[in-house]
Amino acid sequence: MLTGGPDAAMCPARGVLEHVTSRWGVLVLGVLLRGTHRFSEVRRAIGGVSEKMLAQTLQTLERDGFVRREAHPVIPPHVDYSLTGLGEEAARRVWALAQWTDEKIPEVMAAREAYDAAKSARA
Amino acid sequence: MLTGGPDAAMCPARGVLEHVTSRWGVLVLGVLLRGTHRFSEVRRAIGGVSEKMLAQTLQTLERDGFVRREAHPVIPPHVDYSLTGLGEEAARRVWALAQWTDEKIPEVMAAREAYDAAKSARA
Repeated sequence: MLTGGPDAAMCPARGVLEHVTSRWGVLVLGVLLRGTHRFSEVRRAIGGVSEKMLAQTLQTLERDGFVRREAHPVIPPHVDYSLTGLGEEAARRVWALAQWTDEKIPEVMAAREAYDAAKSARA
Repeated sequence: MLTGGPDAAMCPARGVLEHVTSRWGVLVLGVLLRGTHRFSEVRRAIGGVSEKMLAQTLQTLERDGFVRREAHPVIPPHVDYSLTGLGEEAARRVWALAQWTDEKIPEVMAAREAYDAAKSARA
């Protein structure tokens, strides 16, 4: 379980949740949900991610069993990335949460304005 | 939108997603999903969180409009925390993802073992 004990925040599920909701993890899952991509295609689709960070993100998701990496020994060689069955499930869930968050931004922004106004009124 | 441009990872939804999926954010939402709690009750229910980190997490979630803070000017004074309507929606979604992750831990662990074994076989 995720709550209930002093070690709750350190449980293995915590690490996996971090991998799939990380800044680049969410975006990689979103791109691969649209189909198989080569490394350079993932990078272009996301934008703003360094080669090193993307390689690290893909490797973490591959090790967790969410991403499948397929190297083609052709000339020039290339590597395809796609979602496993487990990865597709994860991607759909994470992406639904991300889109919900995106839709609620106006409400969140209004709440922040109200909060800041109340705070400066008290100050 | 969350993907598609160079600023994708910097959009406002990113920040909100981080607040609700943060180590303590997830656990706070989970506790408040069970009902209104005082600060000390939230802290006890989570376990392992410092007073400062919990106060910061609650404040961030309050400012985003997910958590309602109600101070009771009685003796001794106490403060109640509960979810707003928006917060309850967020909590249900985040919690469903966290629980899914928790259920899939055996599969993730098996994937990691296979990955590490393949890697050391290549080395």
